[in-house]
Amino acid sequence: TARNLFLLPGDGIGPEAMGEVRKIIAYMNEAMNAGFVTDEGLVGGSAYDAHGAAISEADMQKALAADAVLFGAVGGPKWDSVPYEVRPEAGLLRLRKDLQLFANLRPAICYPALASASSLKPELVEGLDILIIRELTGGVYFGEPKEIIDLGNGQKRGIDTQVYDTYEIERIAGVAFEMARTRQNRVCSMEKRNVMKSGVLWNQVVTETHKAKYSDVQLEHMLADAGGMQLVRQPKQFDVIVTDNLFGDMLSDVAAMLTGSLGMLPSASLGAPDGKTGKRKALYEPVHGSAPDIAGKGIANPIAMIASFAMCLRYSFNLVKEADDLEKAIANVLDKGIRTGDIMAEGARQVGTVEMGDAILAEFKTL
Amino acid sequence: TARNLFLLPGDGIGPEAMGEVRKIIAYMNEAMNAGFVTDEGLVGGSAYDAHGAAISEADMQKALAADAVLFGAVGGPKWDSVPYEVRPEAGLLRLRKDLQLFANLRPAICYPALASASSLKPELVEGLDILIIRELTGGVYFGEPKEIIDLGNGQKRGIDTQVYDTYEIERIAGVAFEMARTRQNRVCSMEKRNVMKSGVLWNQVVTETHKAKYSDVQLEHMLADAGGMQLVRQPKQFDVIVTDNLFGDMLSDVAAMLTGSLGMLPSASLGAPDGKTGKRKALYEPVHGSAPDIAGKGIANPIAMIASFAMCLRYSFNLVKEADDLEKAIANVLDKGIRTGDIMAEGARQVGTVEMGDAILAEFKTL
Ligand SMILES: CC(C)[C@H](C(=O)O)[C@@H](O)C(=O)O
Ligand SMILES: CC(C)[C@H](C(=O)O)[C@@H](O)C(=O)O
Repeated sequence: TARNLFLLPGDGIGPEAMGEVRKIIAYMNEAMNAGFVTDEGLVGGSAYDAHGAAISEADMQKALAADAVLFGAVGGPKWDSVPYEVRPEAGLLRLRKDLQLFANLRPAICYPALASASSLKPELVEGLDILIIRELTGGVYFGEPKEIIDLGNGQKRGIDTQVYDTYEIERIAGVAFEMARTRQNRVCSMEKRNVMKSGVLWNQVVTETHKAKYSDVQLEHMLADAGGMQLVRQPKQFDVIVTDNLFGDMLSDVAAMLTGSLGMLPSASLGAPDGKTGKRKALYEPVHGSAPDIAGKGIANPIAMIASFAMCLRYSFNLVKEADDLEKAIANVLDKGIRTGDIMAEGARQVGTVEMGDAILAEFKTL
Repeated sequence: TARNLFLLPGDGIGPEAMGEVRKIIAYMNEAMNAGFVTDEGLVGGSAYDAHGAAISEADMQKALAADAVLFGAVGGPKWDSVPYEVRPEAGLLRLRKDLQLFANLRPAICYPALASASSLKPELVEGLDILIIRELTGGVYFGEPKEIIDLGNGQKRGIDTQVYDTYEIERIAGVAFEMARTRQNRVCSMEKRNVMKSGVLWNQVVTETHKAKYSDVQLEHMLADAGGMQLVRQPKQFDVIVTDNLFGDMLSDVAAMLTGSLGMLPSASLGAPDGKTGKRKALYEPVHGSAPDIAGKGIANPIAMIASFAMCLRYSFNLVKEADDLEKAIANVLDKGIRTGDIMAEGARQVGTVEMGDAILAEFKTL
């Protein structure tokens, strides 16, 4: 049976990075009979230019029908002043919401070859391997009211609403505990229960879910501000971190930057398993943005996009060996001193996007 | 005329740290005729134990009447399960709200003697001097509705509301621009305008305020998640950062931890100048918490509390020379290798809370 991939390269360096994944897909079809069928659409600024929307209805339908979506990046100065409703990010937010991708998995790992690229002391990040599980379809991102009201008298009021229901917290906590069991079996839940009522509920529901079904996993609670501090102070203390949409946005970016491997970090956004087929809707995207300043120059680092495809192999198609091999290929290429400009180091060989993709594919073929 | 200080040592290490400030106050009264008159109250867990509230009405009245409030720290495991309304933090939040302390100034500086204590590479933090201006009386901390609703069916809903009005953003932006003029003249404003309507309004109002009254100051806008990353990547790129209550909570803690000087960092929370007298209500507190694990052992670092008093001298009483001298005294004592346990380094002399306070006072006397 066919494996349906829907590709949304997006803006900036997205298309260049996606090009390197295409080569790997082609190779897997040819040499491994992987049966990937790909289709492609527009998202973000490029969709706005073509359709006046951050994603067209037709492309939304294709995303909904696919086994997995591969997403590049969106945004750039060109679209800085388009209306709020059709800004590039709206395409990504709509995909997350309509596909119900509530579980965002953001590994923050430090590639050994890159430990010295971190702004942290190498001994604090060498071997770092954190998995941040961010709730992705709730909280202040989607709660209503979300509006700007004109109060008259020259005054406006901006309002956003953070909302979490029990079931939303329960299901993301479940993902965190399940993931922890495949790792070091430790979960740290972060919120601001000392200030936010949604934080109080978050804390309660995580605690109850733990007690009811996952008491074998070690659970710790931390205030989100203290969590940010601890990430900087001693990141290796963490295994799995589970947190809400907005804190997850902030904390996963800080964690990503700590590793010194920002251009390398992938993410997976997963829905709930379908009751009948067990399949989850899924979208895979690099953590980095569209980097408009270097777009089109052939110098972008495609590793995060390729590593996102490795997550796709693992989580959407259960191709675990292939996923492991692809990740190993990336690590090997880095060990050989092949680097794009963003991760260049003394004595390494600097290459462009295409050469990096070629090197990883060549390595993958040998595994 | 008398200078009225209201002391709220609070819980944990708060009272020990405050003890060292008391010595400096006594010395300034004696030797400099400073005319400080002090009164003292309870806040946090200790107020709960005494009055069943996180701060009593009588102490609130005293805080409102004082020229400045010196605040230690609140909280500890003993009060982890008291009702939400009377949790220790409620005392601090009420003080901020009722005194209308909308401007929270959080310097993130790296004491040269401590650069190596940072988890960042020393060259990234040596000489670091950022001022974070956090809005402190609005946003998701105080917006309504803020509640947990029982939906029946075992489901609850936690709600918090982020609200910002034009005037709130205008006045905090004004503080940031004014402060920038006394420093490197650069402001970076952080929000999530790509996701939050309050962020859209924040961005607009900061831009307009800049254009109308502060166009001599350099202004930059950054998304708050990218801001967190940039703080880790290259903290010295910033001069003044202005942001909302919740982002300010997260970002100032990350920034504080970057400096490696967490136990050393003070903060000032200021109200608007009174129309007649020009006086501002003000509260000064260390950035660190109550550290219940080391409370009562005589080993806590009193420097953040003493540095908070230096801010009080500067901002509440315009005693600029005295503030400078007190800060210099702290730096000199560190340069001499005198350290509390939290900042201990090879070859330094480890001292307790009281000896550290004595050393700083002795140094202050020589300046
Ligand atoms: C692009 C933006 C809407 C998005 C977010 O805030 O979630 C991004 O920062 C991310 O973390 O995926
Ligand atoms: C104690 C707590 C309520 C407080 C806050 O969240 O503002 C603290 O973290 C701070 O930053 O001053």
